[in-house]
Amino acid sequence: MQERDADPAFFTQANLFLELFLKLRQRSAEFDLVHIHAFDWPAFACSTLIQDIPVIHTLHLPAVTPEINEALRVMDRQGHPQTLVTVSYSCAETYASYTLIDYVIYNGLDLDAIPFNPKTPVEAPLLFAGRIAPEKGVEAAIDIAEKAGYRLLIAGGIYDRHYFEQRIVPKLRRAGGRVTYLGQLERLALWKVMGQSLGLLFPIEWDEPFGLTAVEAMATGTPVIAFRRGAAQEIIRHGETGFLVEEGETAHAAALVDDLYDIPRAHCRAHVEANFSLQQMLDTYEQVYYSLSS
Amino acid sequence: MQERDADPAFFTQANLFLELFLKLRQRSAEFDLVHIHAFDWPAFACSTLIQDIPVIHTLHLPAVTPEINEALRVMDRQGHPQTLVTVSYSCAETYASYTLIDYVIYNGLDLDAIPFNPKTPVEAPLLFAGRIAPEKGVEAAIDIAEKAGYRLLIAGGIYDRHYFEQRIVPKLRRAGGRVTYLGQLERLALWKVMGQSLGLLFPIEWDEPFGLTAVEAMATGTPVIAFRRGAAQEIIRHGETGFLVEEGETAHAAALVDDLYDIPRAHCRAHVEANFSLQQMLDTYEQVYYSLSS
Repeated sequence: MQERDADPAFFTQANLFLELFLKLRQRSAEFDLVHIHAFDWPAFACSTLIQDIPVIHTLHLPAVTPEINEALRVMDRQGHPQTLVTVSYSCAETYASYTLIDYVIYNGLDLDAIPFNPKTPVEAPLLFAGRIAPEKGVEAAIDIAEKAGYRLLIAGGIYDRHYFEQRIVPKLRRAGGRVTYLGQLERLALWKVMGQSLGLLFPIEWDEPFGLTAVEAMATGTPVIAFRRGAAQEIIRHGETGFLVEEGETAHAAALVDDLYDIPRAHCRAHVEANFSLQQMLDTYEQVYYSLSS
Repeated sequence: MQERDADPAFFTQANLFLELFLKLRQRSAEFDLVHIHAFDWPAFACSTLIQDIPVIHTLHLPAVTPEINEALRVMDRQGHPQTLVTVSYSCAETYASYTLIDYVIYNGLDLDAIPFNPKTPVEAPLLFAGRIAPEKGVEAAIDIAEKAGYRLLIAGGIYDRHYFEQRIVPKLRRAGGRVTYLGQLERLALWKVMGQSLGLLFPIEWDEPFGLTAVEAMATGTPVIAFRRGAAQEIIRHGETGFLVEEGETAHAAALVDDLYDIPRAHCRAHVEANFSLQQMLDTYEQVYYSLSS
Protein backbone atom coordinates (compact mmCIF):
# COMPACT_ATOMS: atom_id res chain seq x y z
CA MET A 1 0.00 0.00 0.00
CA GLN A 2 2.77 2.41 0.90
CA GLU A 3 5.23 3.60 -1.67
CA ARG A 4 8.76 3.03 -0.47
CA ASP A 5 10.99 6.03 -1.09
CA ALA A 6 14.13 4.94 0.67
CA ASP A 7 15.77 1.56 0.82
CA PRO A 8 15.44 -0.82 3.77
CA ALA A 9 19.12 -0.46 4.74
CA PHE A 10 18.60 3.26 5.25
CA PHE A 11 15.78 2.66 7.70
CA THR A 12 17.60 -0.14 9.49
CA GLN A 13 20.40 2.28 10.26
CA ALA A 14 17.97 5.14 10.92
CA ASN A 15 16.14 3.10 13.56
CA LEU A 16 19.47 2.20 15.19
CA PHE A 17 20.26 5.90 15.50
CA LEU A 18 16.76 6.58 16.86
CA GLU A 19 17.22 3.91 19.50
CA LEU A 20 20.73 5.06 20.37
CA PHE A 21 19.63 8.64 20.97
CA LEU A 22 16.46 7.68 22.87
CA LYS A 23 18.71 5.62 25.13
CA LEU A 24 21.35 8.33 25.44
CA ARG A 25 18.71 10.87 26.37
CA GLN A 26 17.53 8.68 29.22
CA ARG A 27 21.09 8.16 30.42
CA SER A 28 22.42 11.63 29.72
CA ALA A 29 23.13 12.18 33.44
CA GLU A 30 25.87 9.56 33.10
CA PHE A 31 27.73 11.55 30.44
CA ASP A 32 29.26 15.01 30.18
CA LEU A 33 28.66 15.37 26.47
CA VAL A 34 28.08 13.44 23.25
CA HIS A 35 30.54 13.69 20.37
CA ILE A 36 29.24 12.37 17.04
CA HIS A 37 31.25 11.50 13.93
CA ALA A 38 28.45 9.90 11.87
CA PHE A 39 27.73 11.64 8.58
CA ASP A 40 24.15 10.40 8.16
CA TRP A 41 20.88 12.31 8.15
CA PRO A 42 19.40 10.25 11.01
CA ALA A 43 22.48 10.90 13.15
CA PHE A 44 21.95 14.65 12.84
CA ALA A 45 18.16 14.54 13.14
CA CYS A 46 18.04 12.11 16.08
CA SER A 47 20.90 13.81 17.94
CA THR A 48 18.52 16.74 18.50
CA LEU A 49 16.80 14.49 21.06
CA ILE A 50 19.64 15.25 23.45
CA GLN A 51 19.24 18.54 25.25
CA ASP A 52 20.57 18.07 28.79
CA ILE A 53 24.21 17.78 27.78
CA PRO A 54 26.21 19.32 24.93
CA VAL A 55 26.26 17.60 21.54
CA ILE A 56 29.22 17.98 19.19
CA HIS A 57 29.28 16.84 15.57
CA THR A 58 32.56 16.59 13.70
CA LEU A 59 31.90 16.91 9.97
CA HIS A 60 34.51 14.86 8.17
CA LEU A 61 33.06 15.55 4.72
CA PRO A 62 32.33 18.80 2.90
CA ALA A 63 28.77 19.92 2.17
CA VAL A 64 28.22 17.31 -0.56
CA THR A 65 25.03 15.79 0.85
CA PRO A 66 21.92 17.92 0.20
CA GLU A 67 19.74 16.40 2.93
CA ILE A 68 22.42 16.95 5.56
CA ASN A 69 22.98 20.52 4.40
CA GLU A 70 19.26 21.12 4.75
CA ALA A 71 19.09 19.49 8.18
CA LEU A 72 21.98 21.68 9.33
CA ARG A 73 20.24 24.74 7.90
CA VAL A 74 17.04 23.81 9.75
CA MET A 75 18.87 23.29 13.04
CA ASP A 76 20.76 26.56 12.61
CA ARG A 77 17.55 28.46 11.77
CA GLN A 78 15.79 26.99 14.83
CA GLY A 79 18.70 27.95 17.07
CA HIS A 80 19.30 24.33 18.03
CA PRO A 81 22.27 24.41 20.42
CA GLN A 82 24.71 21.94 18.91
CA THR A 83 28.42 22.42 18.33
CA LEU A 84 29.77 21.83 14.83
CA VAL A 85 33.39 21.06 14.10
CA THR A 86 35.06 20.47 10.75
CA VAL A 87 38.54 19.37 9.86
CA SER A 88 39.69 22.37 7.77
CA TYR A 89 38.74 25.95 6.97
CA SER A 90 38.21 24.86 3.39
CA CYS A 91 35.70 22.26 4.55
CA ALA A 92 34.06 24.78 6.90
CA GLU A 93 33.60 27.18 4.03
CA THR A 94 31.47 24.67 2.12
CA TYR A 95 28.88 24.91 4.92
CA ALA A 96 28.82 28.70 5.02
CA SER A 97 25.43 29.07 3.35
CA TYR A 98 23.82 26.42 5.58
CA THR A 99 25.09 26.86 9.11
CA LEU A 100 27.66 28.42 11.34
CA ILE A 101 30.61 26.12 12.03
CA ASP A 102 31.86 26.55 15.59
CA TYR A 103 35.37 25.16 15.36
CA VAL A 104 37.94 23.95 12.87
CA ILE A 105 40.03 21.22 14.43
CA TYR A 106 42.63 19.56 12.25
CA ASN A 107 43.04 15.82 12.36
CA GLY A 108 46.05 14.69 14.35
CA LEU A 109 48.53 11.87 13.92
CA ASP A 110 50.21 9.76 16.59
CA LEU A 111 53.75 10.70 15.59
CA ASP A 112 55.35 8.13 17.91
CA ALA A 113 53.85 5.47 15.66
CA ILE A 114 55.07 6.95 12.37
CA PRO A 115 58.75 6.38 11.59
CA PHE A 116 60.65 9.46 10.34
CA ASN A 117 63.13 8.88 7.53
CA PRO A 118 65.62 11.79 7.50
CA LYS A 119 67.27 10.83 4.20
CA THR A 120 65.87 10.42 0.72
CA PRO A 121 67.21 7.14 -0.67
CA VAL A 122 69.12 7.21 -3.95
CA GLU A 123 66.84 6.99 -6.96
CA ALA A 124 63.78 7.13 -4.73
CA PRO A 125 60.47 6.78 -6.57
CA LEU A 126 57.43 8.99 -6.35
CA LEU A 127 54.39 7.67 -4.51
CA PHE A 128 50.64 7.86 -4.87
CA ALA A 129 48.77 6.67 -1.79
CA GLY A 130 45.04 6.59 -1.25
CA ARG A 131 41.83 5.02 -2.41
CA ILE A 132 41.93 4.03 -6.09
CA ALA A 133 39.01 6.22 -7.11
CA PRO A 134 38.60 9.02 -9.67
CA GLU A 135 38.47 11.90 -7.18
CA LYS A 136 41.85 10.94 -5.72
CA GLY A 137 43.69 11.72 -8.98
CA VAL A 138 45.48 8.44 -9.69
CA GLU A 139 45.63 9.19 -13.41
CA ALA A 140 47.09 12.63 -12.84
CA ALA A 141 49.72 11.08 -10.55
CA ILE A 142 50.78 8.66 -13.30
CA ASP A 143 50.87 11.54 -15.74
CA ILE A 144 53.06 13.66 -13.46
CA ALA A 145 55.51 10.83 -12.80
CA GLU A 146 55.80 10.02 -16.50
CA LYS A 147 56.33 13.66 -17.47
CA ALA A 148 58.99 13.98 -14.75
CA GLY A 149 60.67 10.73 -15.82
CA TYR A 150 60.44 9.16 -12.36
CA ARG A 151 59.23 5.79 -11.17
CA LEU A 152 55.87 5.79 -9.38
CA LEU A 153 54.54 3.44 -6.73
CA ILE A 154 50.78 3.29 -6.18
CA ALA A 155 49.38 2.09 -2.85
CA GLY A 156 45.73 1.88 -1.96
CA GLY A 157 42.60 -0.20 -2.02
CA ILE A 158 40.52 -0.40 -5.20
CA TYR A 159 37.26 1.39 -4.38
CA ASP A 160 36.09 1.65 -7.94
CA ARG A 161 36.82 -1.57 -9.79
CA HIS A 162 35.49 -0.32 -13.13
CA TYR A 163 37.64 2.81 -12.90
CA PHE A 164 40.70 0.74 -11.99
CA GLU A 165 40.27 -1.67 -14.87
CA GLN A 166 39.24 0.84 -17.53
CA ARG A 167 41.47 3.77 -16.64
CA ILE A 168 44.41 2.59 -14.55
CA VAL A 169 45.32 -0.92 -15.73
CA PRO A 170 45.99 0.22 -19.35
CA LYS A 171 48.28 2.96 -18.03
CA LEU A 172 50.12 0.47 -15.82
CA ARG A 173 50.69 -1.80 -18.83
CA ARG A 174 51.90 1.04 -21.00
CA ALA A 175 54.28 2.26 -18.31
CA GLY A 176 55.97 -1.13 -17.96
CA GLY A 177 58.10 -1.25 -14.80
CA ARG A 178 58.00 2.53 -14.26
CA VAL A 179 54.61 2.46 -12.50
CA THR A 180 53.92 -0.26 -9.94
CA TYR A 181 50.65 -0.97 -8.13
CA LEU A 182 51.42 -2.27 -4.64
CA GLY A 183 47.84 -3.01 -3.58
CA GLN A 184 46.51 -1.93 -0.21
CA LEU A 185 49.28 -1.84 2.39
CA GLU A 186 49.07 -2.18 6.15
CA ARG A 187 49.58 1.16 7.84
CA LEU A 188 53.15 0.55 9.02
CA ALA A 189 54.20 -0.86 5.65
CA LEU A 190 52.65 2.18 3.96
CA TRP A 191 54.54 4.58 6.24
CA LYS A 192 57.81 2.79 5.40
CA VAL A 193 57.13 3.09 1.67
CA MET A 194 56.19 6.73 2.20
CA GLY A 195 59.41 7.45 4.05
CA GLN A 196 61.46 5.96 1.25
CA SER A 197 59.84 8.01 -1.48
CA LEU A 198 61.11 11.20 -3.03
CA GLY A 199 57.68 12.74 -2.72
CA LEU A 200 53.99 12.04 -2.45
CA LEU A 201 51.86 13.04 -5.42
CA PHE A 202 48.51 14.37 -4.22
CA PRO A 203 46.80 15.64 -7.39
CA ILE A 204 43.28 15.53 -5.95
CA GLU A 205 40.29 15.91 -8.22
CA TRP A 206 37.81 16.94 -5.53
CA ASP A 207 37.85 19.32 -2.57
CA GLU A 208 39.59 17.03 -0.11
CA PRO A 209 38.32 18.07 3.33
CA PHE A 210 41.65 17.37 5.04
CA GLY A 211 44.17 15.07 3.34
CA LEU A 212 45.38 12.65 5.95
CA THR A 213 47.62 10.79 3.47
CA ALA A 214 49.55 13.94 2.68
CA VAL A 215 50.05 14.66 6.38
CA GLU A 216 51.20 11.07 6.97
CA ALA A 217 53.74 11.43 4.14
CA MET A 218 55.11 14.64 5.67
CA ALA A 219 55.27 12.90 9.04
CA THR A 220 57.65 10.34 7.49
CA GLY A 221 59.69 13.26 6.15
CA THR A 222 58.41 13.02 2.58
CA PRO A 223 57.29 16.25 0.90
CA VAL A 224 54.08 16.48 -1.13
CA ILE A 225 53.16 17.86 -4.53
CA ALA A 226 49.45 18.66 -4.48
CA PHE A 227 46.81 20.34 -6.57
CA ARG A 228 45.60 23.50 -4.82
CA ARG A 229 42.09 22.31 -3.95
CA GLY A 230 40.17 21.71 -0.74
CA ALA A 231 42.39 21.77 2.31
CA ALA A 232 45.69 21.23 0.43
CA GLN A 233 46.98 24.73 1.10
CA GLU A 234 46.10 24.43 4.78
CA ILE A 235 48.17 21.31 5.30
CA ILE A 236 51.08 21.82 2.85
CA ARG A 237 53.47 24.78 3.03
CA HIS A 238 54.44 25.65 -0.50
CA GLY A 239 58.22 25.57 -0.84
CA GLU A 240 58.67 24.32 2.73
CA THR A 241 56.94 20.94 2.93
CA GLY A 242 56.10 20.44 -0.72
CA PHE A 243 54.54 22.30 -3.61
CA LEU A 244 51.05 23.43 -4.53
CA VAL A 245 50.15 23.73 -8.21
CA GLU A 246 46.88 24.71 -9.81
CA GLU A 247 44.52 21.82 -10.45
CA GLY A 248 45.13 19.87 -13.62
CA GLU A 249 48.62 21.37 -14.08
CA THR A 250 50.44 18.07 -14.33
CA ALA A 251 53.27 19.57 -16.42
CA HIS A 252 53.93 22.19 -13.73
CA ALA A 253 53.81 19.49 -11.06
CA ALA A 254 56.26 17.36 -13.07
CA ALA A 255 58.62 20.32 -13.41
CA LEU A 256 58.73 20.63 -9.61
CA VAL A 257 59.65 17.01 -8.91
CA ASP A 258 63.43 17.61 -9.04
CA ASP A 259 62.96 20.46 -6.56
CA LEU A 260 61.63 17.96 -3.99
CA TYR A 261 65.31 17.20 -3.19
CA ASP A 262 65.61 20.76 -1.88
CA ILE A 263 62.82 20.34 0.70
CA PRO A 264 64.44 19.49 4.05
CA ARG A 265 62.74 16.32 5.22
CA ALA A 266 63.06 17.49 8.82
CA HIS A 267 60.88 20.49 7.94
CA CYS A 268 58.13 18.17 6.82
CA ARG A 269 58.25 16.20 10.04
CA ALA A 270 58.45 19.34 12.18
CA HIS A 271 55.49 20.87 10.36
CA VAL A 272 53.34 17.86 11.24
CA GLU A 273 54.60 17.81 14.81
CA ALA A 274 53.76 21.48 15.19
CA ASN A 275 50.34 21.42 13.57
CA PHE A 276 48.89 17.95 13.17
CA SER A 277 49.86 15.94 16.22
CA LEU A 278 47.40 13.65 17.93
CA GLN A 279 48.12 15.42 21.20
CA GLN A 280 47.25 18.77 19.72
CA MET A 281 43.98 17.47 18.32
CA LEU A 282 43.06 15.88 21.63
CA ASP A 283 43.99 19.01 23.58
CA THR A 284 41.85 21.16 21.31
CA TYR A 285 38.87 18.82 21.57
CA GLU A 286 39.29 18.75 25.33
CA GLN A 287 39.29 22.54 25.44
CA VAL A 288 36.03 22.52 23.49
CA TYR A 289 34.62 19.84 25.81
CA TYR A 290 35.52 21.90 28.87
CA SER A 291 34.14 25.13 27.50
CA LEU A 292 30.84 23.41 26.65
CA SER A 293 30.38 21.46 29.84
CA SER A 294 31.40 24.15 32.31
CA MET B 1 31.11 11.00 -2.99
CA GLN B 2 28.12 9.92 -0.92
CA GLU B 3 25.84 7.13 -2.00
CA ARG B 4 22.25 8.27 -1.95
CA ASP B 5 19.99 5.68 -0.39
CA ALA B 6 16.73 7.57 -0.29
CA ASP B 7 15.22 9.91 -2.80
CA PRO B 8 15.36 13.70 -2.47
CA ALA B 9 11.59 14.00 -1.87
CA PHE B 10 11.91 11.82 1.21
CA PHE B 11 14.54 14.11 2.72
CA THR B 12 12.69 17.28 1.75
CA GLN B 13 9.74 16.05 3.78
CA ALA B 14 11.97 14.64 6.52
CA ASN B 15 13.63 18.03 7.01
CA LEU B 16 10.21 19.70 7.19
CA PHE B 17 9.26 17.34 10.01
CA LEU B 18 12.59 18.00 11.73
CA GLU B 19 12.00 21.73 11.57
CA LEU B 20 8.39 21.42 12.71
CA PHE B 21 9.30 19.43 15.79
CA LEU B 22 12.32 21.58 16.67
CA LYS B 23 9.95 24.56 16.53
CA LEU B 24 7.20 22.82 18.47
CA ARG B 25 9.64 21.83 21.19
CA GLN B 26 10.67 25.44 21.67
CA ARG B 27 7.04 26.55 21.79
CA SER B 28 5.63 23.58 23.70
CA ALA B 29 4.57 25.87 26.57
CA GLU B 30 1.98 27.32 24.20
CA PHE B 31 0.30 23.95 23.64
CA ASP B 32 -1.34 21.32 25.83
CA LEU B 33 -0.43 18.42 23.60
CA VAL B 34 0.50 17.44 20.06
CA HIS B 35 -1.69 15.11 18.04
CA ILE B 36 -0.05 13.66 14.91
CA HIS B 37 -1.74 11.93 11.98
CA ALA B 38 1.28 11.64 9.67
CA PHE B 39 2.22 8.09 8.73
CA ASP B 40 5.87 8.78 7.86
CA TRP B 41 9.04 7.58 9.54
CA PRO B 42 10.36 11.13 10.15
CA ALA B 43 7.07 12.11 11.81
CA PHE B 44 7.49 9.31 14.35
CA ALA B 45 11.24 9.75 14.82
CA CYS B 46 11.19 13.56 15.09
CA SER B 47 8.10 13.62 17.33
CA THR B 48 10.31 12.10 20.05
CA LEU B 49 11.88 15.56 20.33
CA ILE B 50 8.81 16.67 22.28
CA GLN B 51 8.92 15.71 25.92
CA ASP B 52 7.29 18.54 27.87
CA ILE B 53 3.78 17.86 26.65
CA PRO B 54 1.98 14.66 25.62
CA VAL B 55 2.29 13.41 22.05
CA ILE B 56 -0.45 11.33 20.44
CA HIS B 57 -0.15 9.50 17.14
CA THR B 58 -3.23 8.20 15.37
CA LEU B 59 -2.25 5.30 13.12
CA HIS B 60 -4.63 5.31 10.16
CA LEU B 61 -2.91 2.40 8.43
CA PRO B 62 -2.14 -1.13 9.59
CA ALA B 63 1.43 -2.29 10.23
CA VAL B 64 2.31 -2.44 6.52
CA THR B 65 5.43 -0.26 6.68
CA PRO B 66 8.49 -2.09 8.07
CA GLU B 67 10.48 1.02 9.01
CA ILE B 68 7.56 2.46 10.98
CA ASN B 69 6.96 -0.87 12.72
CA GLU B 70 10.61 -0.91 13.73
CA ALA B 71 10.54 2.72 14.89
CA LEU B 72 7.48 1.94 17.04
CA ARG B 73 9.22 -1.14 18.42
CA VAL B 74 12.28 0.94 19.29
CA MET B 75 10.18 3.62 21.01
CA ASP B 76 8.22 0.99 22.92
CA ARG B 77 11.41 -0.80 24.01
CA GLN B 78 12.94 2.47 25.19
CA GLY B 79 9.82 3.33 27.15
CA HIS B 80 9.29 6.49 25.14
CA PRO B 81 6.10 8.05 26.57
CA GLN B 82 3.90 8.57 23.54
CA THR B 83 0.25 7.67 23.14
CA LEU B 84 -0.76 5.50 20.19
CA VAL B 85 -4.27 5.39 18.80
CA THR B 86 -5.60 3.30 15.94
CA VAL B 87 -8.97 3.30 14.22
CA SER B 88 -10.03 -0.33 14.87
CA TYR B 89 -9.15 -3.35 16.98
CA SER B 90 -8.26 -5.16 13.79
CA CYS B 91 -5.77 -2.43 12.94
CA ALA B 92 -4.45 -2.40 16.52
CA GLU B 93 -3.83 -6.14 16.33
CA THR B 94 -1.44 -5.71 13.39
CA TYR B 95 0.87 -3.74 15.72
CA ALA B 96 0.77 -6.28 18.54
CA SER B 97 4.27 -7.62 17.97
CA TYR B 98 5.79 -4.12 17.71
CA THR B 99 4.21 -1.91 20.34
CA LEU B 100 1.40 -1.46 22.77
CA ILE B 101 -1.51 0.49 21.31
CA ASP B 102 -3.09 2.74 23.95
CA TYR B 103 -6.52 3.39 22.47
CA VAL B 104 -8.79 2.33 19.64
CA ILE B 105 -10.92 5.27 18.55
CA TYR B 106 -13.26 4.74 15.63
CA ASN B 107 -13.53 7.38 12.96
CA GLY B 108 -16.64 9.49 13.24
CA LEU B 109 -18.99 11.02 10.69
CA ASP B 110 -20.82 14.34 10.86
CA LEU B 111 -24.30 12.85 10.56
CA ASP B 112 -25.98 16.23 10.17
CA ALA B 113 -24.23 16.49 6.82
CA ILE B 114 -25.22 13.04 5.53
CA PRO B 115 -28.81 12.72 4.29
CA PHE B 116 -30.69 9.63 5.51
CA ASN B 117 -32.91 7.89 2.97
CA PRO B 118 -35.47 5.78 4.86
CA LYS B 119 -36.82 3.96 1.77
CA THR B 120 -35.11 1.78 -0.79
CA PRO B 121 -36.21 2.99 -4.24
CA VAL B 122 -37.84 0.48 -6.56
CA GLU B 123 -35.30 -1.47 -8.62
CA ALA B 124 -32.45 0.19 -6.74
CA PRO B 125 -28.98 -0.78 -7.98
CA LEU B 126 -26.05 -2.01 -5.97
CA LEU B 127 -23.12 0.34 -5.42
CA PHE B 128 -19.36 0.11 -5.24
CA ALA B 129 -17.72 3.24 -3.83
CA GLY B 130 -14.05 3.81 -3.21
CA ARG B 131 -10.71 4.17 -4.88
CA ILE B 132 -10.47 2.20 -8.12
CA ALA B 133 -7.54 0.06 -7.00
CA PRO B 134 -7.02 -3.70 -6.67
CA GLU B 135 -7.18 -3.88 -2.87
CA LYS B 136 -10.65 -2.30 -2.85
CA GLY B 137 -12.22 -5.25 -4.68
CA VAL B 138 -13.84 -3.59 -7.68
CA GLU B 139 -13.70 -6.82 -9.69
CA ALA B 140 -15.33 -8.84 -6.94
CA ALA B 141 -18.09 -6.21 -6.70
CA ILE B 142 -18.83 -6.56 -10.41
CA ASP B 143 -18.78 -10.33 -10.01
CA ILE B 144 -21.23 -10.22 -7.09
CA ALA B 145 -23.65 -7.89 -8.90
CA GLU B 146 -23.62 -10.03 -12.03
CA LYS B 147 -24.17 -13.25 -10.09
CA ALA B 148 -27.05 -11.61 -8.22
CA GLY B 149 -28.54 -10.22 -11.44
CA TYR B 150 -28.53 -6.63 -10.19
CA ARG B 151 -27.32 -3.40 -11.73
CA LEU B 152 -24.10 -1.95 -10.24
CA LEU B 153 -22.95 1.64 -10.03
CA ILE B 154 -19.25 2.28 -9.46
CA ALA B 155 -18.12 5.58 -7.93
CA GLY B 156 -14.53 6.51 -7.19
CA GLY B 157 -11.34 8.04 -8.48
CA ILE B 158 -9.01 5.95 -10.61
CA TYR B 159 -5.90 5.44 -8.48
CA ASP B 160 -4.42 2.71 -10.62
CA ARG B 161 -4.91 3.56 -14.31
CA HIS B 162 -3.34 0.33 -15.56
CA TYR B 163 -5.59 -1.75 -13.32
CA PHE B 164 -8.66 0.22 -14.45
CA GLU B 165 -7.90 -0.19 -18.14
CA GLN B 166 -6.73 -3.79 -18.04
CA ARG B 167 -9.11 -5.27 -15.50
CA ILE B 168 -12.18 -3.04 -15.16
CA VAL B 169 -12.89 -1.52 -18.59
CA PRO B 170 -13.29 -4.96 -20.29
CA LYS B 171 -15.77 -5.98 -17.58
CA LEU B 172 -17.71 -2.74 -18.04
CA ARG B 173 -17.94 -3.38 -21.79
CA ARG B 174 -19.04 -6.96 -21.32
CA ALA B 175 -21.70 -5.94 -18.78
CA GLY B 176 -23.29 -3.41 -21.14
CA GLY B 177 -25.68 -1.13 -19.24
CA ARG B 178 -25.73 -3.35 -16.10
CA VAL B 179 -22.50 -1.88 -14.69
CA THR B 180 -21.93 1.88 -14.85
CA TYR B 181 -18.82 3.80 -13.86
CA LEU B 182 -19.85 7.20 -12.48
CA GLY B 183 -16.37 8.62 -12.00
CA GLN B 184 -15.33 10.39 -8.80
CA LEU B 185 -18.32 12.10 -7.19
CA GLU B 186 -18.42 15.05 -4.84
CA ARG B 187 -19.17 13.96 -1.30
CA LEU B 188 -22.81 15.10 -1.22
CA ALA B 189 -23.54 13.57 -4.65
CA LEU B 190 -21.95 10.32 -3.47
CA TRP B 191 -24.10 10.26 -0.32
CA LYS B 192 -27.23 10.74 -2.46
CA VAL B 193 -26.26 7.86 -4.75
CA MET B 194 -25.49 5.77 -1.67
CA GLY B 195 -28.88 6.49 -0.15
CA GLN B 196 -30.63 5.41 -3.32
CA SER B 197 -28.84 2.09 -3.57
CA LEU B 198 -30.07 -1.28 -2.39
CA GLY B 199 -26.72 -2.00 -0.80
CA LEU B 200 -23.04 -1.16 -0.82
CA LEU B 201 -20.70 -3.91 -1.95
CA PHE B 202 -17.50 -3.83 0.12
CA PRO B 203 -15.57 -6.94 -0.99
CA ILE B 204 -12.20 -5.70 0.21
CA GLU B 205 -9.03 -7.47 -0.82
CA TRP B 206 -6.84 -6.15 1.99
CA ASP B 207 -7.19 -5.64 5.72
CA GLU B 208 -9.05 -2.35 5.61
CA PRO B 209 -8.12 -0.53 8.81
CA PHE B 210 -11.56 1.07 9.19
CA GLY B 211 -13.86 1.32 6.15
CA LEU B 212 -15.22 4.83 6.09
CA THR B 213 -17.15 4.24 2.86
CA ALA B 214 -19.13 1.41 4.43
CA VAL B 215 -19.97 3.58 7.43
CA GLU B 216 -21.05 6.43 5.15
CA ALA B 217 -23.34 4.03 3.27
CA MET B 218 -24.94 2.89 6.53
CA ALA B 219 -25.33 6.52 7.56
CA THR B 220 -27.48 7.08 4.47
CA GLY B 221 -29.50 4.02 5.47
CA THR B 222 -27.90 1.64 2.98
CA PRO B 223 -26.74 -1.77 4.24
CA VAL B 224 -23.38 -3.26 3.30
CA ILE B 225 -22.24 -6.64 2.05
CA ALA B 226 -18.57 -7.00 2.96
CA PHE B 227 -15.82 -9.57 2.98
CA ARG B 228 -14.87 -10.43 6.56
CA ARG B 229 -11.41 -8.87 6.59
CA GLY B 230 -9.75 -6.07 8.52
CA ALA B 231 -12.23 -3.97 10.47
CA ALA B 232 -15.31 -5.09 8.52
CA GLN B 233 -16.80 -7.07 11.39
CA GLU B 234 -16.23 -4.17 13.77
CA ILE B 235 -18.24 -1.72 11.69
CA ILE B 236 -20.94 -3.94 10.14
CA ARG B 237 -23.44 -5.95 12.22
CA HIS B 238 -24.11 -9.16 10.34
CA GLY B 239 -27.86 -9.47 9.72
CA GLU B 240 -28.55 -6.04 11.23
CA THR B 241 -26.73 -3.50 9.07
CA GLY B 242 -25.60 -5.77 6.27
CA PHE B 243 -23.85 -9.08 5.77
CA LEU B 244 -20.33 -10.39 6.26
CA VAL B 245 -19.11 -13.21 4.05
CA GLU B 246 -15.75 -14.93 3.92
CA GLU B 247 -13.26 -13.32 1.59
CA GLY B 248 -13.55 -14.30 -2.05
CA GLU B 249 -17.02 -15.82 -1.56
CA THR B 250 -18.71 -13.79 -4.28
CA ALA B 251 -21.41 -16.44 -4.85
CA HIS B 252 -22.36 -16.32 -1.18
CA ALA B 253 -22.38 -12.53 -1.30
CA ALA B 254 -24.58 -12.61 -4.41
CA ALA B 255 -27.02 -14.99 -2.70
CA LEU B 256 -27.46 -12.46 0.12
CA VAL B 257 -28.31 -9.49 -2.09
CA ASP B 258 -32.07 -10.13 -2.06
CA ASP B 259 -31.93 -10.26 1.75
CA LEU B 260 -30.74 -6.65 1.80
CA TYR B 261 -34.43 -5.68 1.48
CA ASP B 262 -34.96 -7.19 4.93
CA ILE B 263 -32.39 -4.95 6.62
CA PRO B 264 -34.27 -2.00 8.16
CA ARG B 265 -32.55 1.10 6.83
CA ALA B 266 -33.24 2.91 10.10
CA HIS B 267 -31.08 0.29 11.84
CA CYS B 268 -28.16 1.17 9.64
CA ARG B 269 -28.50 4.87 10.39
CA ALA B 270 -29.00 4.23 14.13
CA HIS B 271 -25.92 1.97 14.22
CA VAL B 272 -23.77 4.75 12.81
CA GLU B 273 -25.34 7.34 15.11
CA ALA B 274 -24.65 5.13 18.10
CA ASN B 275 -21.10 4.11 17.23
CA PHE B 276 -19.49 6.27 14.56
CA SER B 277 -20.64 9.83 15.10
CA LEU B 278 -18.27 12.74 14.81
CA GLN B 279 -19.33 13.88 18.28
CA GLN B 280 -18.47 10.52 19.78
CA MET B 281 -15.05 10.51 18.15
CA LEU B 282 -14.36 14.06 19.34
CA ASP B 283 -15.57 13.28 22.86
CA THR B 284 -13.34 10.23 23.05
CA TYR B 285 -10.30 12.13 21.81
CA GLU B 286 -11.05 14.90 24.30
CA GLN B 287 -11.21 12.38 27.12
CA VAL B 288 -7.81 11.09 26.06
CA TYR B 289 -6.49 14.65 25.83
CA TYR B 290 -7.74 15.42 29.35
CA SER B 291 -6.38 12.23 30.85
CA LEU B 292 -2.96 12.93 29.34
CA SER B 293 -2.70 16.59 30.16
CA SER B 294 -4.05 16.48 33.70
